[in-house]
Amino acid sequence: MRCLSHSYYMNVALELAKQGEYFVLPNPRVGCVIVKNGTIIGRGFHQRYGDRHAEVLAIEDAIKNGYSLKNATMYVTLEPCSHYGKQPPCTEAIVRSGIKKVVVATKDPNPLVNGKGIARLKSAGIEVIVGILENEAILLNKDFFKFIKTNLPYIAVKVAQSLDGKIASPGGERFSFNTEEENDFVHLLRQKYMAVLVSANTVITDNPMLNARFGKIIRQPARVVIDTNLKIPTNSKIVETAKDYQTFVVYSKKNEEKIKILSQSGIKLIEADESENGMDLRDALSKLAKEKIASILVEGGGNLNFSLLKEGLADYWYSFVFHTFIGGKATKTSVDGEGFLNSYPKLSNVKITRFKNSTLIEGDISYV
Amino acid sequence: MRCLSHSYYMNVALELAKQGEYFVLPNPRVGCVIVKNGTIIGRGFHQRYGDRHAEVLAIEDAIKNGYSLKNATMYVTLEPCSHYGKQPPCTEAIVRSGIKKVVVATKDPNPLVNGKGIARLKSAGIEVIVGILENEAILLNKDFFKFIKTNLPYIAVKVAQSLDGKIASPGGERFSFNTEEENDFVHLLRQKYMAVLVSANTVITDNPMLNARFGKIIRQPARVVIDTNLKIPTNSKIVETAKDYQTFVVYSKKNEEKIKILSQSGIKLIEADESENGMDLRDALSKLAKEKIASILVEGGGNLNFSLLKEGLADYWYSFVFHTFIGGKATKTSVDGEGFLNSYPKLSNVKITRFKNSTLIEGDISYV
Repeated sequence: MRCLSHSYYMNVALELAKQGEYFVLPNPRVGCVIVKNGTIIGRGFHQRYGDRHAEVLAIEDAIKNGYSLKNATMYVTLEPCSHYGKQPPCTEAIVRSGIKKVVVATKDPNPLVNGKGIARLKSAGIEVIVGILENEAILLNKDFFKFIKTNLPYIAVKVAQSLDGKIASPGGERFSFNTEEENDFVHLLRQKYMAVLVSANTVITDNPMLNARFGKIIRQPARVVIDTNLKIPTNSKIVETAKDYQTFVVYSKKNEEKIKILSQSGIKLIEADESENGMDLRDALSKLAKEKIASILVEGGGNLNFSLLKEGLADYWYSFVFHTFIGGKATKTSVDGEGFLNSYPKLSNVKITRFKNSTLIEGDISYV
Repeated sequence: MRCLSHSYYMNVALELAKQGEYFVLPNPRVGCVIVKNGTIIGRGFHQRYGDRHAEVLAIEDAIKNGYSLKNATMYVTLEPCSHYGKQPPCTEAIVRSGIKKVVVATKDPNPLVNGKGIARLKSAGIEVIVGILENEAILLNKDFFKFIKTNLPYIAVKVAQSLDGKIASPGGERFSFNTEEENDFVHLLRQKYMAVLVSANTVITDNPMLNARFGKIIRQPARVVIDTNLKIPTNSKIVETAKDYQTFVVYSKKNEEKIKILSQSGIKLIEADESENGMDLRDALSKLAKEKIASILVEGGGNLNFSLLKEGLADYWYSFVFHTFIGGKATKTSVDGEGFLNSYPKLSNVKITRFKNSTLIEGDISYV
């Protein structure tokens, strides 16, 4: 009974946490409820990167509601922080409040916290329970967990393709699949990630803006161009609007003059190591992680997609499978390169969404 | 009210007709109910090719139930036949029965009937109403209607592909996607068509049986191999089992010796016209229609699929999209050939079925 009840309150906290979705990265989504005699007396969730944390908001909410926190229990989806970041440590606010017990879904993998928050609470005589709905709590922040644990951004790949897997016309030109329905969805998707990434070839052939401009606009993702040889045209939309949207160009072959022009236009340039095939993608991504880009939506071509899969760098996949045939032995497909000879990457936890002209197939990528 | 009531009884007849699904081709599925004073007194549906027709079975059912047919109304999903085929004309049984009114969903497109049945009933003083749930009745027999109207089989294409559209490994070998769930589905699907068709290349690389052997087995489809140059190996399973399963090999380049060997093994050989690309597919299909092959499930490769789409010969499409990536710029895809430069074929009336490892996307093919 006791355990059931823990799950119930933790679930409320998880639902609260989800409300922070678009706004908190590179922080984790966190929700918190405070319970006294079985009643929820305070609620809070982390609302925006840099703002106050869920625990502090829940404590304030309980006080505002006229409750004493003495002997209350706190349910929080992530271990409370114990260090000074953009906000003072939550552990101190909890200790001061009189709360007697703290139930935590999962430890914070951030090396600055990672058990220290729990230890601090215990040392203050607070009972701490860890592990209630832990899987759900990790899933809720799977991008944050990957980012913190690997120092690489969480990578999702988005593809619009024909039923036969093609992403371009047989002649190689851009194929415009998207109708309003898919556009609204994709532009909302872009806002769920901290950045949208393409290759320089996409900039050259499609000249995209890569911002969010259809449907509901909540925030603008940063834009990243993978451009080994600095081929990006200076008159492309991305360069021309780099002062309005955070923009990164990642290169491997230095070109001082081009670097100067791009820097002046407002682009942040990042140098990544070279590899046999051009750029060391892992290095490029780890350098983006250092810029606090915790998650990226890749909207590139079949070769970039193949490299991301081959190197095990991609975490999630969205394929809008349009109910159309393009055909062609040489037409670009959503995954090109040399192809996999064995250990084919797969999707798990697959979700299907039906649109009028397409079927969206999405899921976690698992590497065997 | 009167009209509502017609639809109600016709719907019952349509549901009866569907029970004939697997067994009646190349005949149409037909259902029939007889109504007197608002009560259904007799039911029938065409159960198997060559057997008695729905109208006669419904009349017998009513008599067996002890009813007089005098002044009764018959609802039948297709115009009653008026000619001697494998069965005597239904019109005469109806006239003899005393039925006063016949409600028909749609005219029989078969030139042997096509209005003559209705005319015969009217000339006998029976009131005839045509057009109740006509679209539903045509949809129910869309294969039969195409076959009768165009003298070509109804063509469905079935594909098993990766999410990125590939149907083979990058090296070109067969990629075995199917798990038990999809196998059962596909082997039931084969039984819905009069024949399963592949190209000789598929026989050479995969050596398939092309019979129904998983899940529920109701009947065996005929097997058709498109083999322009008569390359089919004489020791392939298809040749070796040609005495057990009706088998056709369609060729364009004569090879008397090979023809003799194949004929002796029990294969029926069909010569089709040549075309620039090898075989004139339309001629091949029309010759199969002459053999009473009213519907075909194509399980070929990307080039055959492309040709069928390009020539507007394919009517329906099934893609099992496996949640797996194969990749490769040169890997075979579900639709190869040169590709479409404009007027891309599309699916309409799309239906999605979720399997554990794949998503089935199926629909009618529309050519713009």
